[in-house]
Amino acid sequence: MTSNPAPPLTVALGDRSYAIVFGDGLQRSVAAQVRALARAGRRAVVVTDTRVARRQRAALQAMFGGAPRRAVPAGETSKSLAVFGRLLDFFAAEKLDRGGVVFAVGGGVVGDLAGFAAASYLRGIDYFQVPTTLLAMVDSSVGGKTGINLRAGKNLAGAFHQPRGVFVDTRLLRTLPRREFAAGMAEVIKTGLLGDAALFGELERQAVAPGDSRLAAVVRCCCEIKAAIVAADERELAPEGGRALLNLGHTFAHAIERVAGYGTYLHGEAVAIGLGAAADLSRRLGLIVERDAQRVRAVLAAHGLPVRLRRPLSAARLMAATAADKKARGGERRFVVLRGPGQAETRSGVPAALAEACFRAAGAK
Amino acid sequence: MTSNPAPPLTVALGDRSYAIVFGDGLQRSVAAQVRALARAGRRAVVVTDTRVARRQRAALQAMFGGAPRRAVPAGETSKSLAVFGRLLDFFAAEKLDRGGVVFAVGGGVVGDLAGFAAASYLRGIDYFQVPTTLLAMVDSSVGGKTGINLRAGKNLAGAFHQPRGVFVDTRLLRTLPRREFAAGMAEVIKTGLLGDAALFGELERQAVAPGDSRLAAVVRCCCEIKAAIVAADERELAPEGGRALLNLGHTFAHAIERVAGYGTYLHGEAVAIGLGAAADLSRRLGLIVERDAQRVRAVLAAHGLPVRLRRPLSAARLMAATAADKKARGGERRFVVLRGPGQAETRSGVPAALAEACFRAAGAK
Repeated sequence: MTSNPAPPLTVALGDRSYAIVFGDGLQRSVAAQVRALARAGRRAVVVTDTRVARRQRAALQAMFGGAPRRAVPAGETSKSLAVFGRLLDFFAAEKLDRGGVVFAVGGGVVGDLAGFAAASYLRGIDYFQVPTTLLAMVDSSVGGKTGINLRAGKNLAGAFHQPRGVFVDTRLLRTLPRREFAAGMAEVIKTGLLGDAALFGELERQAVAPGDSRLAAVVRCCCEIKAAIVAADERELAPEGGRALLNLGHTFAHAIERVAGYGTYLHGEAVAIGLGAAADLSRRLGLIVERDAQRVRAVLAAHGLPVRLRRPLSAARLMAATAADKKARGGERRFVVLRGPGQAETRSGVPAALAEACFRAAGAK
Repeated sequence: MTSNPAPPLTVALGDRSYAIVFGDGLQRSVAAQVRALARAGRRAVVVTDTRVARRQRAALQAMFGGAPRRAVPAGETSKSLAVFGRLLDFFAAEKLDRGGVVFAVGGGVVGDLAGFAAASYLRGIDYFQVPTTLLAMVDSSVGGKTGINLRAGKNLAGAFHQPRGVFVDTRLLRTLPRREFAAGMAEVIKTGLLGDAALFGELERQAVAPGDSRLAAVVRCCCEIKAAIVAADERELAPEGGRALLNLGHTFAHAIERVAGYGTYLHGEAVAIGLGAAADLSRRLGLIVERDAQRVRAVLAAHGLPVRLRRPLSAARLMAATAADKKARGGERRFVVLRGPGQAETRSGVPAALAEACFRAAGAK
């Protein structure tokens, strides 16, 4: 971990490999990419959301000039079949052919939605990501998971579709609200916890704040860890470990988001509570000691993140939601647990009573 | 070409390889597959259409018993975003997890729609095809192309998603209307024309009728040719030849379907007119002689297929539709042309006047 500029990172996936470029101010690099595509006769369109369109007006103009642009409503509700269909119609109206290219400029919602639309249009066209939130930078820019929500649950429809490239421009974070920055840090902390004790130690030593000189390197470190996991298990088929490790805290978090109602907690806030619960579960299983669980909660709190529910939710409903989680297979709950900071593993057959005790310790009733 | 039972065919696509089983009466084989999945703890659901549900009531019962079943409205209009969404909701309501399996029982519409839903649900679950039309047997059961229509055109959204297996049961064709059987023969004739002079010769020697003892072998022959082409170019990326050859006649056909209004012609009928036009184009380009073009038209006619528009369509609108076809890249029209019966190639830069002359010769004005 240094404060040096972070060099580009290649996500190695055979003929679907791509580069993530990091920097503080990448508008010229993006503009150069757009021009290169135009020279090759390839039409580019931009998908963003109304909030990014307002906050990043100048940056969008500098990167994309007059390229066709569609701003979906900001927020999780845009990850719907209806908005997905409108994007497909937009691509068709702009006469994108198989050489067409989509730039997804926004947070996870825009990336997931525009990525799934790019995956589906003409059975798959290229797309680039320009994440504008910390969460999207560390989470959505590696992995190729795209998707939308169904009435029955989040991310129930989608595709694996790797981007052609990702531009991680930490300058775009300057307009990000503090609460969203903290939510992004939840995924950073998760990544340290599951795969890099040194990163976790760095976050313990001093919390990362917006504008922190370590930011690009911290983001790169997370992308590198995730890229290695994804490269080894692109389609999440490994029976143990593998890509499922990235769901540390997420079985709890998905249940919390679902029972509280999507939008009540930012995804990263639910993940923070879920990480605390996963540490608690690991302690109850005898895998870590209470001191380790305390360290997890302390790092989360130091980054302005919750470790308890703001209002009590029904423990019974939370448990029912974990059973419905799509990570369940054959109906069995599967959790990611800690062996220590920096080391995680998947665990099936966790007694329901233990999981419920963790929800209650986090404020469920 | 013999009248012996046709042995299974493996479509070789690495870890996405699968077998196509042929026979006259395969209900027990399908039922055995369903039972094997159930034993492995995997839930299976059936997607069909209202017409198949009515005509094949007993067969569906014999194959699937009480498995959850959804019948979409028969016809091309079901290849919509709305019906796609309802299938995804159906899968979720039936609590399919990643081990869930979809059986698509029907023609091309059901296969394309259910295949895309299976490709998208949880970012991809397994599906099997049980085609009930000749067209679906020779066309949709090999290739892995799934999709739906957008307002702007046919098959504009979808995914490449290979089935886990296909059951080609020619007994299911006994209830198929004569007109639909003929439409399926258009794709058989196309396949002979583009890749197998012996098959084309066999069709010239004697037209294939429903109940023909050669049927299973003819279908298998088409699947084998298509499988070899698809295996070499799974995602249609070859700049010349490759999978695009399967579009022989289709640039014309897609334009005819679009301008006439979907449903005016069965897809196979539009393909038949398109094959005649492609032969005409090949003659105008000096690639084949008039006698060859006549042979193509004669085989189509002998199978009860049209080679001219039933009512004149606007040549200008047909030409505009070919330019909008998704096979166009960089806006340039690309046609598949014949070098002779059994040999085809892709051709870019065809003068618009030549293509228009072919539409006019087929009855456009």
